[in-house]
Amino acid sequence: MESKIRVTVWNEFRHEKEGGAAQKVYPNGLHAVIKEFLDKNDDMEVRLAALDDPDQGLPDEVLNNTDVLLWWGHCHHWEVNDELVEKVRQRVYREGMGFIPLHSGHHSKPFKAIVGCTGDLEWGDGVKEVVWNLNPSHPIAAGIPKAFELPVEELYSEPFFVPQPDQLVFGSWFEQGNIFRSGICYFRGLGKIFYFQPGHEEFPSFYNEYVQKIITNAVRWAKPVNRVIKDECPYVGTGLFDKTHEENNI
Amino acid sequence: MESKIRVTVWNEFRHEKEGGAAQKVYPNGLHAVIKEFLDKNDDMEVRLAALDDPDQGLPDEVLNNTDVLLWWGHCHHWEVNDELVEKVRQRVYREGMGFIPLHSGHHSKPFKAIVGCTGDLEWGDGVKEVVWNLNPSHPIAAGIPKAFELPVEELYSEPFFVPQPDQLVFGSWFEQGNIFRSGICYFRGLGKIFYFQPGHEEFPSFYNEYVQKIITNAVRWAKPVNRVIKDECPYVGTGLFDKTHEENNI
Amino acid sequence: MESKIRVTVWNEFRHEKEGGAAQKVYPNGLHAVIKEFLDKNDDMEVRLAALDDPDQGLPDEVLNNTDVLLWWGHCHHWEVNDELVEKVRQRVYREGMGFIPLHSGHHSKPFKAIVGCTGDLEWGDGVKEVVWNLNPSHPIAAGIPKAFELPVEELYSEPFFVPQPDQLVFGSWFEQGNIFRSGICYFRGLGKIFYFQPGHEEFPSFYNEYVQKIITNAVRWAKPVNRVIKDECPYVGTGLFDKTHEENNI
Amino acid sequence: MESKIRVTVWNEFRHEKEGGAAQKVYPNGLHAVIKEFLDKNDDMEVRLAALDDPDQGLPDEVLNNTDVLLWWGHCHHWEVNDELVEKVRQRVYREGMGFIPLHSGHHSKPFKAIVGCTGDLEWGDGVKEVVWNLNPSHPIAAGIPKAFELPVEELYSEPFFVPQPDQLVFGSWFEQGNIFRSGICYFRGLGKIFYFQPGHEEFPSFYNEYVQKIITNAVRWAKPVNRVIKDECPYVGTGLFDKTHEENNI
Repeated sequence: MESKIRVTVWNEFRHEKEGGAAQKVYPNGLHAVIKEFLDKNDDMEVRLAALDDPDQGLPDEVLNNTDVLLWWGHCHHWEVNDELVEKVRQRVYREGMGFIPLHSGHHSKPFKAIVGCTGDLEWGDGVKEVVWNLNPSHPIAAGIPKAFELPVEELYSEPFFVPQPDQLVFGSWFEQGNIFRSGICYFRGLGKIFYFQPGHEEFPSFYNEYVQKIITNAVRWAKPVNRVIKDECPYVGTGLFDKTHEENNI
Repeated sequence: MESKIRVTVWNEFRHEKEGGAAQKVYPNGLHAVIKEFLDKNDDMEVRLAALDDPDQGLPDEVLNNTDVLLWWGHCHHWEVNDELVEKVRQRVYREGMGFIPLHSGHHSKPFKAIVGCTGDLEWGDGVKEVVWNLNPSHPIAAGIPKAFELPVEELYSEPFFVPQPDQLVFGSWFEQGNIFRSGICYFRGLGKIFYFQPGHEEFPSFYNEYVQKIITNAVRWAKPVNRVIKDECPYVGTGLFDKTHEENNI
Repeated sequence: MESKIRVTVWNEFRHEKEGGAAQKVYPNGLHAVIKEFLDKNDDMEVRLAALDDPDQGLPDEVLNNTDVLLWWGHCHHWEVNDELVEKVRQRVYREGMGFIPLHSGHHSKPFKAIVGCTGDLEWGDGVKEVVWNLNPSHPIAAGIPKAFELPVEELYSEPFFVPQPDQLVFGSWFEQGNIFRSGICYFRGLGKIFYFQPGHEEFPSFYNEYVQKIITNAVRWAKPVNRVIKDECPYVGTGLFDKTHEENNI
Repeated sequence: MESKIRVTVWNEFRHEKEGGAAQKVYPNGLHAVIKEFLDKNDDMEVRLAALDDPDQGLPDEVLNNTDVLLWWGHCHHWEVNDELVEKVRQRVYREGMGFIPLHSGHHSKPFKAIVGCTGDLEWGDGVKEVVWNLNPSHPIAAGIPKAFELPVEELYSEPFFVPQPDQLVFGSWFEQGNIFRSGICYFRGLGKIFYFQPGHEEFPSFYNEYVQKIITNAVRWAKPVNRVIKDECPYVGTGLFDKTHEENNI
């Protein structure tokens, strides 16, 4: 952990500017609250990005200097440029950038493109949620109890149309009768992905100590391990970045 | 599915003889109810076995002619002979017998020995359970809806100390605030294992149409695929049944 | 297995018409050879489709009546219409169609879109291959020995940029010093996917008894289990096909 | 990584004292070589243990102060006391101790008991091995190239009778025509397990820079994440250490 982890927190950042509950709970945007608790860690340097920023918040110089990208989007997924989505996907696959979609990020274009899914799920109004720790030996579960309660969160429910997670770390109970795989890990190319469900814009989950701990752990888990794979082996054929791959628009 | 699947339903079969709720719900033993619904399938031939039968219900001629073994035990796990446990484990690993522990079978000696776990979990009194279908593309989920309800089942809860399932098919919600990985698959050696949680002796879950469908699907899924692996390859070294393995009591 | 499995074998079908080795080995196209061995099974009804057929071989009436789609493509992936790719993906995810990409299908648009990957790998000229059975308890491995040899196949090598398989069934050794995860399973939405590596157009692998057995097993494994998920649960929120999902072009 | 990782390297340590190749390659025992390269890391404090030490090298005060236990055994697995095996298993499951069996450790009593398997495999004489990096995004693969060569290692081959790994990190090619899942991860209870195949007593693999890097990475990956799971949840029933569990000799 010599060099700092360069974290970018991307937020659609529309709800919080439209007044109402979202603005009350997150007056400066929920990404600002995430930055605030991540900033407490000496091994991270955190910057903010939003949909309405130039280049939708992710010009090349930002994206290419991001080790871990957190992504919160909800009603405006469709506004995100496909070119940007592809850049994000390529950076995860080929350069190992960590990607952490939060809450409605299950339907974000990058998440669906990176892990390969529809991201569909069932949902309902806010109810009590209990988050259960299904893999206490996982780094993202460090310091997390058997279970913790969120007094009110948006109901997310199975069936959740995602690939079977490479690692299932958290599962949630919702008052109405639903369950949800709420903390799931994927490996893709050189990159790691962690989706985490709590975080509706109108509820204070991002102030919860365990939600903060989980996101903090996830940033460390998701940081790139191999930015480039050395190729010293006499046995390999054509390279990973072989032209025909690009032509095949991989 | 040319030849029939030879199924043995093993039951501790003590509660149902002690009167009380268990006897009312399952007068002839819960294994008899399981046999009854499995018998409706032309491709299965089903026999019963119980802890108090000679050789604890599983003499060699029975075990060696069983393709899929269902196992229901609760308070008398410790009475099962370790020699029998090892025979069951070897038949799963080396001959591909399917093994389907039900309900409290999570703590049965064969389950713990076969998959490698403590099987520990948390539990409580009977409450409402909702079983969710987490993998609708899995053969064991054939014909199962998104979710179905059991009016009352014994509360089983995470943390459930089992290996991360090779396939997570069902997850359950319990009224009190708990969730549980209630239908999980493992591959071990030549054999397949499916643990399914519903089935407390005092509750009528084994009469539920979906519980019956799931157990029926599981029997077909768990039947042996390769009873022996042909070895036509010039590259293999010492064989699978190499003596030193036996000496190492594998 | 009451109703027959409706199988469509899609082939780019260009090499075999251009003369040379491909035409010698597969004069009527390699898809014709696949159809020939699948036709021996009473439980399958098989049809052929090719890139140069009307609607690229997959008009709606064909796609919508296909239970399992086999896909062989190589140099013309880019010619496949994106609209068709999306239709294939939706049918796998939402209607449970099985999808079996063969050989260079690792780079086909549908495979990359369905499982979420670049599909990149390393490759080289034809060498001896040994296919190893890594999961003898898996239905696709039924009747397959510990290992079998292909005298010459195109060298495919790790690193293979695919999601960690939900099930790793086969792995291969290549003479030059390479290995490859050559038989891998994925679950996506309601559908199942099996990628299998042997099958270069100039080599006779599709005539190999074990390659034929594996593909035959895979078709049965991949057939839809739940074409629709019944929704009898009082706990679900908005439905799987909710409009906003379509708008989000899921 | 505030407090140091307390590492114990356990070695059967018989071959190296019997003269011959093993003594020439590892005059002070292979565990001494492992300690030597681990000692270069400020975040580790390493001690040695051997089968012929008092209490077989692992008295309670040592075991209870070990965060990560490396285990090398070969011909004397059967001499290890079952009581000690059970203590190791309990410490992994219940206190999160990392466990890293090396080479012939696939047949060690603790490995088989902890992950649940026979550990059977095929083997042969020393040949050239190529280790392939199958998951470059995994922490244990940090700094490891696509592939690296070991001029001579004992041939280990599939079929390898272990549970499907929770994470498959390395796979190996052997000159004769064999492949092997040579670097595999498991989660069990609170503990993490990594099995790594290179390391025959007569070959110098433990001097290889990448073997050293992999073992070093594995120690960090395997260190305990949660030594105890806090239980602040109002929803749990009986505790993890419930008496009846002990009686059931879990």
